[in-house]
Amino acid sequence: VAPRPITFLSDYGYADEFAGVCRAVIARIEPGARLIDLSHGVPAGAVRQGAVSLGNSLPFTPAGIHLAVVDPGVGSERRAVAVEAAQDGRILVGPDNGLLWPAIERLGGAVRAVDLAASPFRLDPVSRTFHGRDLFAPVAAHLAGGAKLKDAGEEIDAATLTRLELPQARVGPGRAVAHVLHVDGFGNVALNVGSGQLAGGFLDRASASASASPSDAKQGDTVMVQAGGSKLRARLGKAFADVPPGEAVLYEDSSGSLAIAINQGSAAGRLGVAADDEVVLSPGG
Amino acid sequence: VAPRPITFLSDYGYADEFAGVCRAVIARIEPGARLIDLSHGVPAGAVRQGAVSLGNSLPFTPAGIHLAVVDPGVGSERRAVAVEAAQDGRILVGPDNGLLWPAIERLGGAVRAVDLAASPFRLDPVSRTFHGRDLFAPVAAHLAGGAKLKDAGEEIDAATLTRLELPQARVGPGRAVAHVLHVDGFGNVALNVGSGQLAGGFLDRASASASASPSDAKQGDTVMVQAGGSKLRARLGKAFADVPPGEAVLYEDSSGSLAIAINQGSAAGRLGVAADDEVVLSPGG
Amino acid sequence: VAPRPITFLSDYGYADEFAGVCRAVIARIEPGARLIDLSHGVPAGAVRQGAVSLGNSLPFTPAGIHLAVVDPGVGSERRAVAVEAAQDGRILVGPDNGLLWPAIERLGGAVRAVDLAASPFRLDPVSRTFHGRDLFAPVAAHLAGGAKLKDAGEEIDAATLTRLELPQARVGPGRAVAHVLHVDGFGNVALNVGSGQLAGGFLDRASASASASPSDAKQGDTVMVQAGGSKLRARLGKAFADVPPGEAVLYEDSSGSLAIAINQGSAAGRLGVAADDEVVLSPGG
Repeated sequence: VAPRPITFLSDYGYADEFAGVCRAVIARIEPGARLIDLSHGVPAGAVRQGAVSLGNSLPFTPAGIHLAVVDPGVGSERRAVAVEAAQDGRILVGPDNGLLWPAIERLGGAVRAVDLAASPFRLDPVSRTFHGRDLFAPVAAHLAGGAKLKDAGEEIDAATLTRLELPQARVGPGRAVAHVLHVDGFGNVALNVGSGQLAGGFLDRASASASASPSDAKQGDTVMVQAGGSKLRARLGKAFADVPPGEAVLYEDSSGSLAIAINQGSAAGRLGVAADDEVVLSPGG
Repeated sequence: VAPRPITFLSDYGYADEFAGVCRAVIARIEPGARLIDLSHGVPAGAVRQGAVSLGNSLPFTPAGIHLAVVDPGVGSERRAVAVEAAQDGRILVGPDNGLLWPAIERLGGAVRAVDLAASPFRLDPVSRTFHGRDLFAPVAAHLAGGAKLKDAGEEIDAATLTRLELPQARVGPGRAVAHVLHVDGFGNVALNVGSGQLAGGFLDRASASASASPSDAKQGDTVMVQAGGSKLRARLGKAFADVPPGEAVLYEDSSGSLAIAINQGSAAGRLGVAADDEVVLSPGG
Repeated sequence: VAPRPITFLSDYGYADEFAGVCRAVIARIEPGARLIDLSHGVPAGAVRQGAVSLGNSLPFTPAGIHLAVVDPGVGSERRAVAVEAAQDGRILVGPDNGLLWPAIERLGGAVRAVDLAASPFRLDPVSRTFHGRDLFAPVAAHLAGGAKLKDAGEEIDAATLTRLELPQARVGPGRAVAHVLHVDGFGNVALNVGSGQLAGGFLDRASASASASPSDAKQGDTVMVQAGGSKLRARLGKAFADVPPGEAVLYEDSSGSLAIAINQGSAAGRLGVAADDEVVLSPGG
């Protein structure tokens, strides 16, 4: 049987060999497993941002073993886990700090889970600060090779897995108070509100006219975006080039979130926002 | 038949999962295709820099499918294309914004091309802002697996492909007005002039003496480099260590361009130049 | 016979296609060889930092061909070498500038070595500034494919390989004068002293109480860390979360070095240190 593919996401960054050493550990145990690096650029210790990124990615990956490490509590009492999701027998491997939770939810919930602390697959010795190398990567490799989940650790109640609490947007008539879910490398700002949540509200007018050229746009097609002391007038649209360079567009991004971008610029820079900051949307402006 | 290899270059950067998700989409469609990441560090939206990088890279890669995404106009009316080049049946996949052009030229020109907008290989739905994931990656994967180009989209006239206009250097007797083609991560500055273009001029003296130690160098072996308000005296040489640390060398770089480096330093930082800036070379100094 | 795996570490960074082009050259020569990127984030020209990183990584990789390029003297008279280590027939390929030395030592020393300057496996022509592409990568690929070391270049005396001189820590009673070996992307500071070297000294008290909660810690469990004009009081511990967020911990890191971290912060930033800086440790504070 061919080994299952392994996806790998972490906050190890690119300055060091941390991600590379995990790749090496996997290659040593299961040389034939295809390893797909999703990203190692999650900001250091940013569990929530890693969780969002993982949840957005997994629906596009092959079903397999999904290794994720953003683990500021490594070496503390937080659990290390492997979790089987309902869909496709996918198995997620990582710290039980909420990182895996949105992905688990998208994959139909957790079917079963094991605690990896005393996993027979771990390297010996296990360092206190690099569980990616010593615990998570070897477990992922063995699972990719066909090992059973129950043999990877001690069974735990899947209902006890740590959930991720994300801030909730409040959408009222003509006004939405949202939060920054993610800022990407282009400076685009994803909000914790889907365009569907705004249906029946002021965004309805957008879908009717968004495909028109900017010069055809009606007054109602603009939204005032406020964050901290900054204000930005954004046009409703579907793609960056729907507005002239340097202007702002409010659109549904590729993960289904409402997002703000500056065509050929950085919306995050202009608004001065980072993950979790509050953003208020109101029509017109 | 084994799938063809896929090379992948983009401006998706390393902070996000964008490149990783494209890798995942490819692995899902064509698990056996070898994927070679060329770079995802092209500056955001820098079509010209991505084009230069792609053109310099492809002659060293296996023949296969060559995926490239630097696409500030994603979701607008710019075309998405797959282009077969004259050499080795190589196929380039990406936006028709000039990004692919220098590579196509180096590979003997375009033999045929298709518009991918309604490609049967695209994911459904196609987002408006992430064609790498939804359009280009799946098309590349299917082509790697043996799909025919004509089945990937609607045939278009290859003569209509967007060309990249690069600034042209002016080389006169004893003076060359060039432009910065590329600044690499070491701060080395590649110019849009090949050392061959300066043959018969002041650079001839260089080749005769460049292998001599710096202390043997004659007065004529130096070149004055001017950019903006900055001036730099560079010695003609072949490698960084031909000059002492902190000094400048003018040399033919690994892609055949004339380039300026500071041994163990940054020439771009010293000169204060970026891509497209004008640089004037004159002998002596 | 299946090709041997190749690991790859360099200072090529992620802004350019340099590492990608080397990957492509390898894939062209030996398409079936598994390539494991360890890191390309070694600071430009930082031979010592690359050497430490390579030495820490290789014990965790599959045995194979180990390509490493941090090469500020490329094109000068420094030798290009391939070196067979005592363990597992591993072969290291790179510049003979000390980069390979700590790894060679960890792998039992050098058994034999060849000079690659005129290797039959090199590309033609060989550029003067990109030996990764033109010399090291093709040699690594051929060796992975089964070529013999003696056919890769001209045999040289392994005793003449360049060694890396690292600064030595001075450990006295109640005081250790160490140096920064490495700063990682999280800002954790590894020192050139192992926790074993401090046995019998003030660090013994740490191991007894480190698993206790910080509030239980005795006065003797703290260490004063001095670097330049900065002072930092660190608690002895085993993992980041052994101290509250924003506080410092002195621990044995995953490569066996004594290291300083700030829980959820940057110790390097707080101390203002970089590689090779002197750090003085004394008990209490």
